[in-house]
Amino acid sequence: MPDDLSDIRYQVALANRLLANEGVLDAFGHVSMRHPGDPGRYLLSRSRSPGLIEADDVLEFTLDSGPVEPPSVQLYAERVIHGCIYQARPDVMAVCHHHAPAVMPFCIAGVPIVPVFHLGAAGGETMPFWNQRDEFGDTNLLVVKPEEGRSLARALGSYAAVLMNHHGATVVGRDLRELVSRSIFMCHNAEYQLRAQLLGAQISGKVPTLTAGETRLAGVINAMPNVTNRTWEYWTLRLDKVGGLPPRAKARPRAASVQGKTSRKMPSRKATARGRSGGKKARTR
Amino acid sequence: MPDDLSDIRYQVALANRLLANEGVLDAFGHVSMRHPGDPGRYLLSRSRSPGLIEADDVLEFTLDSGPVEPPSVQLYAERVIHGCIYQARPDVMAVCHHHAPAVMPFCIAGVPIVPVFHLGAAGGETMPFWNQRDEFGDTNLLVVKPEEGRSLARALGSYAAVLMNHHGATVVGRDLRELVSRSIFMCHNAEYQLRAQLLGAQISGKVPTLTAGETRLAGVINAMPNVTNRTWEYWTLRLDKVGGLPPRAKARPRAASVQGKTSRKMPSRKATARGRSGGKKARTR
Amino acid sequence: MPDDLSDIRYQVALANRLLANEGVLDAFGHVSMRHPGDPGRYLLSRSRSPGLIEADDVLEFTLDSGPVEPPSVQLYAERVIHGCIYQARPDVMAVCHHHAPAVMPFCIAGVPIVPVFHLGAAGGETMPFWNQRDEFGDTNLLVVKPEEGRSLARALGSYAAVLMNHHGATVVGRDLRELVSRSIFMCHNAEYQLRAQLLGAQISGKVPTLTAGETRLAGVINAMPNVTNRTWEYWTLRLDKVGGLPPRAKARPRAASVQGKTSRKMPSRKATARGRSGGKKARTR
Amino acid sequence: MPDDLSDIRYQVALANRLLANEGVLDAFGHVSMRHPGDPGRYLLSRSRSPGLIEADDVLEFTLDSGPVEPPSVQLYAERVIHGCIYQARPDVMAVCHHHAPAVMPFCIAGVPIVPVFHLGAAGGETMPFWNQRDEFGDTNLLVVKPEEGRSLARALGSYAAVLMNHHGATVVGRDLRELVSRSIFMCHNAEYQLRAQLLGAQISGKVPTLTAGETRLAGVINAMPNVTNRTWEYWTLRLDKVGGLPPRAKARPRAASVQGKTSRKMPSRKATARGRSGGKKARTR
Repeated sequence: MPDDLSDIRYQVALANRLLANEGVLDAFGHVSMRHPGDPGRYLLSRSRSPGLIEADDVLEFTLDSGPVEPPSVQLYAERVIHGCIYQARPDVMAVCHHHAPAVMPFCIAGVPIVPVFHLGAAGGETMPFWNQRDEFGDTNLLVVKPEEGRSLARALGSYAAVLMNHHGATVVGRDLRELVSRSIFMCHNAEYQLRAQLLGAQISGKVPTLTAGETRLAGVINAMPNVTNRTWEYWTLRLDKVGGLPPRAKARPRAASVQGKTSRKMPSRKATARGRSGGKKARTR
Repeated sequence: MPDDLSDIRYQVALANRLLANEGVLDAFGHVSMRHPGDPGRYLLSRSRSPGLIEADDVLEFTLDSGPVEPPSVQLYAERVIHGCIYQARPDVMAVCHHHAPAVMPFCIAGVPIVPVFHLGAAGGETMPFWNQRDEFGDTNLLVVKPEEGRSLARALGSYAAVLMNHHGATVVGRDLRELVSRSIFMCHNAEYQLRAQLLGAQISGKVPTLTAGETRLAGVINAMPNVTNRTWEYWTLRLDKVGGLPPRAKARPRAASVQGKTSRKMPSRKATARGRSGGKKARTR
Repeated sequence: MPDDLSDIRYQVALANRLLANEGVLDAFGHVSMRHPGDPGRYLLSRSRSPGLIEADDVLEFTLDSGPVEPPSVQLYAERVIHGCIYQARPDVMAVCHHHAPAVMPFCIAGVPIVPVFHLGAAGGETMPFWNQRDEFGDTNLLVVKPEEGRSLARALGSYAAVLMNHHGATVVGRDLRELVSRSIFMCHNAEYQLRAQLLGAQISGKVPTLTAGETRLAGVINAMPNVTNRTWEYWTLRLDKVGGLPPRAKARPRAASVQGKTSRKMPSRKATARGRSGGKKARTR
Repeated sequence: MPDDLSDIRYQVALANRLLANEGVLDAFGHVSMRHPGDPGRYLLSRSRSPGLIEADDVLEFTLDSGPVEPPSVQLYAERVIHGCIYQARPDVMAVCHHHAPAVMPFCIAGVPIVPVFHLGAAGGETMPFWNQRDEFGDTNLLVVKPEEGRSLARALGSYAAVLMNHHGATVVGRDLRELVSRSIFMCHNAEYQLRAQLLGAQISGKVPTLTAGETRLAGVINAMPNVTNRTWEYWTLRLDKVGGLPPRAKARPRAASVQGKTSRKMPSRKATARGRSGGKKARTR
């Protein structure tokens, strides 16, 4: 667990970039994390494409999705997705909203995503479907109003993810690593489910799924730290290979004193942190 | 808005390369822009694959698609597509003709592309279908004669894009950024529509679409400058990452004096322009 | 047209690499060219994956597919494909045998590839299907014996390409550029045809094709040098971008005197040739 | 055949990386090799994503899948897959367990993979299907217990590969090169089979396959060293192109004296080995 907010900001930026590099996020979508020291706040980037986010872009918000400090930059219009879920789900520490190509056909056709392979169990046995129309009629499909965010959070209930009609999905996790892993494997699961359905259409017309017991047991394994750490390392090195890691955060006004002193006292700290998170140093190994 | 024609030429070259890098254009296809100072002219490259176009390749044409200056290079055979649409649609400031793999199955099967996700609303509720055969019988399918261009423009009518039987699509926009955004999201929409249809075939045999109201409301959002600027920045940085940005225009006879003087007086201008458009400088950030 | 055999060898190597880079060839497959000065010979690489071929790998064969000089290297087992087609088709100057992923489903399902878009007309209105079993029963599916090569050439007849049951395809052209263009667009055509069939299955169950007249007219355009030169330039620059161009041929015993003298007399020639074929020099433009 | 264990370890690491680079392995999956000097042992990496494995990660195990030396690192949970197969199949010298996207739809839909093209014959005429549920009921789907490994080995029988319900596949070979080749072509075969079935669904609803005779004859050709060597060279150069070759092994305690002496006596040996396996040296050719 990183030990100061500047490193937390770096991890949030990294999570956004990992998911962009694996095809879950593109020009849009966003990953947030609940403030590790204050459950009434969360951390989310200013409005920017996820693959470009740097630690300094990551700002603090209260759970009603207002910025803690007056912002000088543009904010994501859909940040109520994050705030409303953190309010409704005390167990959730990280949230991702995305429009991944793999899940879009399901969001459009209204077909549920079901667990079809062991890693897909990360998404749970059931994935609810939220249709914004039911409560709000014709909208631009963005989740912008607090009542829209609350409605989405209600649809999510106690599940791991919720599909959004003609729009995308929102995924939650107990930490950033579980969230990233679950988001990626949910996309793999969707891909395989679509292809398995096409392949088996002439046999039964229905895709065989994991049993409830298999889903629970495989889900437990998938969430174990040795699994989510291994995948985090793997995706980080893939991102590093294409030069996509976020630059290390520059000193920020509020964090300057702490970070500054640390750097001066322990000049080797920065290099260590880089090595740990697969930074530039790692490329020469 | 760039302040002289040499920068406009650069933007046209950039738009071509952005669309090539995102898989909309390949060896063929082209993007034009109406002359910002003279609505009776438009800017289009000499005949060249879009991913290779440089600012100096971009020439001026009158709306009957004749080159303003006698050309020493080969011109696109299909430039009447651009001229005829600029004649028929005073609101259109940019045109793209392409054969993107995502739309070809629709052009071949004769299946309409319909809005199936919020960003796909950029293409509008309806996309007309032009069958060259109806008026011209057997042709080589290229749109070369003025009467073919006019027929296509009539089929386009007041819509955002038109599908062309066994050939491709032509998309229009109110500026280059809206055009690029619309062209790319139209391809994503087509991909998702095809997959949603395959996925849901056994349920209803029909792909659910956005409602008319949703399409209108989401379409408005998609066309807002903060959205098209963000996607333009995102695609530009993706292009830069693979070394694909157009080189800055060299001085041209007609533009030489202006550009030359500027460069000599303000040596930092070039660097500034580069930074703004995501050039080499941006890589070191 | 290059003016000595060493440049011809380079062009054959380049054609192999272009098709490998565009996904037509992989570990296997090969491109040959009829000897420009002796219609009774053809040029084909020693046995090597097409993406790795260098000019020096390209050897001369007689039309019965024997090597003109005793080889010190391994030869392709299937070179009778080339020899037998050059014997049967005096108009053919270049041959490509491949197992492209795009065509394999057609070779397996026994479904004909038909022209479905203007560039796909390069493959002609009809593409015959050769089933090795019909004449030879159970084989390892390779075309190794002269009688197998002759049977394949008979099936090809006067067409542009022939599909081979459970194996791949063989394509012919009147020069290397037409061959490369036709091979690539045949793959695009197959991709679009498959997807158009899936898309339209519920409408008619049949993919609409170009008319015979459209296929003929579009085919003429596709084969025009300004088209095949433009695509050749485009694919060469794509190959150059990933560092895939063949190295310039080193002097070979037989070609040494000619090439050596030329180089000494006209030191700028090599650079010119490089520029023309999209070599290293081109990268700095 | 490499002549000391340090080179063997390098080959195992390389095989893992080749399969990762070709899309067979990702964050998970693993390749092992039977100890060339002791049929009662096998070589497998410590728990690590296959694309990151280095020679030093490769450890020795007995056939009951216990590590020969007490490990200081984490081990793969599923290594009984390897041990149990080496016990049951004396002819098998290399094993790969994977979850390749190409085979997952078959593992999910319960549809057999059948040989549909000449290179796909490498997988044999029949590929058994193992359903862990049949013997073990609800599990997390991992193969961790010895009785699970033995059950899987029984299902594999004398075949070349076995599909695992909702999980993936396990492939065997008589050496690393045959294994790698078979694993990759099995994925190509699965891709083509799925697409051929979609394409031909309206004709017969069944995918035509190779005959038993064709499968046997093509299978013999596919396993010949000149074929598996050529594909190994091809995939190694593709891996090298993206900078993915494993670093040469550093001296290990046990291997230090042998390797150290060799290096000192024959300084050119390392370069030779690199050239052979497509190392850094190869890039400059």
